[in-house]
Amino acid sequence: MTQSLPPIDVLVSEVGPRDGLQSVKQTMPTAAKLRWIGALAAAGLREIEVGSFVSPKRLPQMADAAEVVAAAIKIPGLSVLALVPNLKGAQRALEAGCPRVTLPVSASETHSIKNIGMTTEAAIAQVGEVCKLRATLDHPFGVEVGISTAFGCTMEGPVPEDRVIALAVELAKAGADSVGLSDTTGYGNPAQVKRLFTRLHAELGEKAGGGHFHNTRGQGLANVVAALEVGVTTFDSSQAGLGGCPYAPGASGNIVTEDLVFLLESMGLRTGVSIDKLLEARKVLAEGLPGEALYGQVADAGLPKGFKPAGAAA
Amino acid sequence: MTQSLPPIDVLVSEVGPRDGLQSVKQTMPTAAKLRWIGALAAAGLREIEVGSFVSPKRLPQMADAAEVVAAAIKIPGLSVLALVPNLKGAQRALEAGCPRVTLPVSASETHSIKNIGMTTEAAIAQVGEVCKLRATLDHPFGVEVGISTAFGCTMEGPVPEDRVIALAVELAKAGADSVGLSDTTGYGNPAQVKRLFTRLHAELGEKAGGGHFHNTRGQGLANVVAALEVGVTTFDSSQAGLGGCPYAPGASGNIVTEDLVFLLESMGLRTGVSIDKLLEARKVLAEGLPGEALYGQVADAGLPKGFKPAGAAA
Repeated sequence: MTQSLPPIDVLVSEVGPRDGLQSVKQTMPTAAKLRWIGALAAAGLREIEVGSFVSPKRLPQMADAAEVVAAAIKIPGLSVLALVPNLKGAQRALEAGCPRVTLPVSASETHSIKNIGMTTEAAIAQVGEVCKLRATLDHPFGVEVGISTAFGCTMEGPVPEDRVIALAVELAKAGADSVGLSDTTGYGNPAQVKRLFTRLHAELGEKAGGGHFHNTRGQGLANVVAALEVGVTTFDSSQAGLGGCPYAPGASGNIVTEDLVFLLESMGLRTGVSIDKLLEARKVLAEGLPGEALYGQVADAGLPKGFKPAGAAA
Repeated sequence: MTQSLPPIDVLVSEVGPRDGLQSVKQTMPTAAKLRWIGALAAAGLREIEVGSFVSPKRLPQMADAAEVVAAAIKIPGLSVLALVPNLKGAQRALEAGCPRVTLPVSASETHSIKNIGMTTEAAIAQVGEVCKLRATLDHPFGVEVGISTAFGCTMEGPVPEDRVIALAVELAKAGADSVGLSDTTGYGNPAQVKRLFTRLHAELGEKAGGGHFHNTRGQGLANVVAALEVGVTTFDSSQAGLGGCPYAPGASGNIVTEDLVFLLESMGLRTGVSIDKLLEARKVLAEGLPGEALYGQVADAGLPKGFKPAGAAA
């Protein structure tokens, strides 16, 4: 954390070890996870969501979250995040030494109950509880929230934009450091992205978080471009689009880190990430999850002849 | 042509029967082509590039271009385009009754020679010859140009933006009705798209043409969003991303019509195209090209629950 890193324009937050791994059937062994996280950090990724403190019965792939966090926080310069669904998860994350947690709160009541087993109201209350816990500690930790189904829900359909923004305001009041918007379902479109993030910035100011887009309908990077237009500077993505999408064979779930970094760097926006080293990390991922489908068009097609990333100028 | 069609905000120009079919090994039988073109027109597509008047030795898939044009121009309300590489091709297209031709002129000398067997200079001269021919006729026809490799070349690498714009100006002077920009190689990025189309509009005004993007590195729809930002209102695409990309298994070549129409309609931009009917046309395509790989994430994932296209309000 103390080393001096070159400046970046956009933060790419890697969620593969959490969002990706929880979506595949195989459980990646802990040692393989740590090799992969190490390779991702070595590629220049500065923030990685390394696991999820949920019930191991529900997600056995995440049973080793404490061990993974404890090892990942030793990587110099890496900001480590873990997902926690509630206060209990946050306590476990803290015990493991996790400096920052992220809680999912769904804008769709139906999705909230299916995803984390509680209403949206109850999920907001959990954010409040986690922030209260923080206030009692000598070593405070970061508390982020991502609003799930912010762009629509596979069960409820369209989600009113007013509801999403009112929820973001409530979450900021509950004490969250930042509130981002997640297109959990791949329903979002660039016009909606611009509207929602413009309102989020207006209402939350410094507490407005980043964008988490899925590529289920091929619109992920189009939504990133729209978000960039209105000043969003943090994006979640998953190496190799890991986890795919159960509803769309061949379609990735999360946007693909390699393709996102290529987009940003080719636009002249510095990410601090080396695409060549990302492709090396991809091999480490493949070794840890044999036979798993890996996505990504830059990985398939290769870099353009004569390509110069924005960061190369630094 | 005389029927009254509802207004649209963006013109989606289908190039699958030309750009798609010339890229696959199979030759689609003429009757199947006409069924597919009919289904595409029935889905609401208002412009279709139906074939290419090149040497049948070089592209046997396009040997029936005259027959296809002669049938397609009978479809009410459909604007029919054909690609022609030179004056000879234009004469053949005219004989077939084609009302509008498009000539590819490459910004990369190396690509120009490989693609159409002549230098960029010679290709500009052919545009001039076609426009001269037009001036001698009682029934004038449309002459469009698409600048190939406008965003980079797989052989030459980066293509200077000044060269692309200077070429566009020359082509407009040679008599072309419009000059568009093609990302033949999938090298383009949204920042470059905005710069080049802004300059194209400034230099060519009404003669500035549309965008032809490939999705080779997953950036196709991101580039569309950038182009929309600077006022581009015509985009080429290919149903099912037909033709794929020889350099990227699983990666489509042209952007996928279904995904493009979904992007635009979900943004509130009317295309006049029904996604449901496009998916019907996709079946007709599949029947005509058995076993061929078809792409498209909207086709795989389905439409969002409660999705209302922009055109539905009309």
